[in-house]
Amino acid sequence: MSATAFMINGFDPAAASRLGPEEQRLIARRRALLGPSYKLFYEHPVQFVRAEGVRLYDPQGNAYLDAYNNVPAVGHCHPKVVAAIAEQAARLNTHTRYLDEAILAYAEALLATYPPEIGNVMFTCTGSEATDLALRVARFHTGGSGIVVTRNAYHGITSAAAAISPSMGPNVPLGEHVLTIAAPNPYREAGDVAQRFAEDVRAAAAWFARHGIRFAGLVVDTIFSTDGILPDPAGALAPALAAVHEAGGLFIADEVQPGFGRLGSAMWGFQRHGIVPDIVVMGKPMGNGMPIAGIAARPELLDEFGTKVRYFNTFGANSVSIAAARAVLEVIADEGLMANAAEVGAHLMAGLRAIARTTPSLGDVRGAGLFVGAEFVDPRTGAPDGRRALAVVNRLRERRILISASGAEGSVLKIRPPLPFSQADADEFLVILAEVVAGLDRENRPKDDASPR
Amino acid sequence: MSATAFMINGFDPAAASRLGPEEQRLIARRRALLGPSYKLFYEHPVQFVRAEGVRLYDPQGNAYLDAYNNVPAVGHCHPKVVAAIAEQAARLNTHTRYLDEAILAYAEALLATYPPEIGNVMFTCTGSEATDLALRVARFHTGGSGIVVTRNAYHGITSAAAAISPSMGPNVPLGEHVLTIAAPNPYREAGDVAQRFAEDVRAAAAWFARHGIRFAGLVVDTIFSTDGILPDPAGALAPALAAVHEAGGLFIADEVQPGFGRLGSAMWGFQRHGIVPDIVVMGKPMGNGMPIAGIAARPELLDEFGTKVRYFNTFGANSVSIAAARAVLEVIADEGLMANAAEVGAHLMAGLRAIARTTPSLGDVRGAGLFVGAEFVDPRTGAPDGRRALAVVNRLRERRILISASGAEGSVLKIRPPLPFSQADADEFLVILAEVVAGLDRENRPKDDASPR
Repeated sequence: MSATAFMINGFDPAAASRLGPEEQRLIARRRALLGPSYKLFYEHPVQFVRAEGVRLYDPQGNAYLDAYNNVPAVGHCHPKVVAAIAEQAARLNTHTRYLDEAILAYAEALLATYPPEIGNVMFTCTGSEATDLALRVARFHTGGSGIVVTRNAYHGITSAAAAISPSMGPNVPLGEHVLTIAAPNPYREAGDVAQRFAEDVRAAAAWFARHGIRFAGLVVDTIFSTDGILPDPAGALAPALAAVHEAGGLFIADEVQPGFGRLGSAMWGFQRHGIVPDIVVMGKPMGNGMPIAGIAARPELLDEFGTKVRYFNTFGANSVSIAAARAVLEVIADEGLMANAAEVGAHLMAGLRAIARTTPSLGDVRGAGLFVGAEFVDPRTGAPDGRRALAVVNRLRERRILISASGAEGSVLKIRPPLPFSQADADEFLVILAEVVAGLDRENRPKDDASPR
Repeated sequence: MSATAFMINGFDPAAASRLGPEEQRLIARRRALLGPSYKLFYEHPVQFVRAEGVRLYDPQGNAYLDAYNNVPAVGHCHPKVVAAIAEQAARLNTHTRYLDEAILAYAEALLATYPPEIGNVMFTCTGSEATDLALRVARFHTGGSGIVVTRNAYHGITSAAAAISPSMGPNVPLGEHVLTIAAPNPYREAGDVAQRFAEDVRAAAAWFARHGIRFAGLVVDTIFSTDGILPDPAGALAPALAAVHEAGGLFIADEVQPGFGRLGSAMWGFQRHGIVPDIVVMGKPMGNGMPIAGIAARPELLDEFGTKVRYFNTFGANSVSIAAARAVLEVIADEGLMANAAEVGAHLMAGLRAIARTTPSLGDVRGAGLFVGAEFVDPRTGAPDGRRALAVVNRLRERRILISASGAEGSVLKIRPPLPFSQADADEFLVILAEVVAGLDRENRPKDDASPR
């Protein structure tokens, strides 16, 4: 067992003495009040007091370019969302045991973004609760308990969601009936990754069967965010879906990370793969920060569950969260944010690839829309280089640009800005990233390579 | 297995044809979009479009007196809370991995309402998530899995919380390592209920030990809301706390229902019982409708858990929910809402007892502050009469007063208004309740009692 919980890009409290007195005081107070579970980002944590669009401001008024936060998907403090929240909070904020037209209008607008097979939506407050509900439905419907996830998956923090989240580390045991398989990774594996992935699903289902465990389903983040951001090839999930259905399980697409247009080409990550899942889990960007999440599902899956099991989430689909969520859908459409994600994402990836051409340690650039990964490696061996990626993340933070890192070794830059990120924002990011990467390269050049200046 | 999920005061969709065409359309649309899990209140569901203080308004502008909703604890759309939400939503809404002064100021204000042993707070979005987190902490700390709850307890809807919620009915199986005991009920049992309750805890712990299951703890709603609202006698939980600790478990107080001053005499239900729990679960009224919940705990319980297990809840303690929660604490203090709960609650109970004196079917009136139960019984046998309680609930709804019913048989009126409920509101409620009860008594009088008019 590890002595402490590992977190990529987590602040090490033991290093607090390097910070200023005011920051040390704040961190000590935080530790005393909230306990040790609460981790901060960065070697040098940041404090923000206001935000707007793709920028956050610290107490001194310095602007930080946000290339990380996916929750404020339509931009921090978007005026249309803020107005919807303020107006609704002043008028009515209640629950789903009274009739309400607004929740139905939103459900209709949301389901209209789905293929026709996905006809029902149920609301929770968080993605964790949505994962948990998806598991309840899948277990109820199949009568099974066997769940397959990817090796470094993250699906949430309820007991049941944490038990299918291997990225939480060895101190959080996986469920007894949880098996992990490698995510499809064309950068790291040869051959047909889609078929290999499907074969692994089949093998896991066979293992369950051999042990008398009924298979309930496969849960996958359709961009494999914590596995290192693995969008390719589009279509890779289709054979796995067939394998899941052959084995009598359900395909649960976790769209908390890729959903709501971030990938540019489609509203939902599963659409890039040309499949229709059985249950979809939604979360983070849904209300631009207002707590709202949920599942969308094939109605036939909810028929028996919903008839036999009542589900009531007090704050789930409260009037204010619904108003925010409706405004988010409207802003995504009105401001063409999906198209922007596609265009700016392509521009960003082209720029990253240009940097990679002169940076041997930048082994791979991949992404879809405004969900972009850039993997650092040891140029001699090709091994993932989490140390380098982390150095880049922390130096960018010193230059007031926010990103983080991802993947089992933390070797992949996670670039995932609010969707109104512009071409100019991308250029600003690329210029500074190139400087940071070049600086690290100079410092890390082996001594015997040093030539006279 | 029951064919359908039972819910006290749930609308029966089969009875939709008795409603008006507009309501039928809305209900059919709701069923088509949200599936069958979503239950409505009342034989004749209500629709609201705005609310203020202790009143909700339907689309025709009719006012309903809210004697039920505990989430808008400081009153629907309280201007101070609404302003805090609007101001914060426009300025910054972010998460706990950046430094923030506001969350610390709120944590300090919240912990100041606790005894000094309870020194840490962790935030979630919902009470279900908070229960789930409390279970994770208790299981991690004790290394055990055995949990004791009361017979008709409700603690939430995540997989783990539902598994300790027998009130969800037979279609939601309890966890393998969950035992239930009867809540202390001086109306229904003779002798020392506090000692009997503690003995039941001891017996359950012994059962676990005999089966090789390590005891993790006891989870109790300190007002026993779903068990039928059982506040008495104050102090009844003290022997149980000792029994829990003898057996090596943790005492988890679920304060989602009684917490935040509702009981009048104290901020927290456990304080009425003169005990200090190990972990406290908070929820519903915390943000007056903004999703915020959490646990408060003895810091030593979080030391190892927090060091080894990272916990991050994306929307948990988001800036807007914290702003709302802080405003709620301020309003409770500034407007003297605890004192109001004590005074108006006492007035309400006195009025109910006056009605009970001439109403043999009203067997018991009990409560603390503005959490009041009134139990209907068969006057001949004393058996709980859920049918009569439900009739009262539905007739009050026709008179535009909102309450519900509670207890395993649904025989207990659940009267739990927003805390600014005034003496005049209580009088309005009592006058109409007396008419409804008298009307039902007349209709139900045995035919041979009928005397010529």
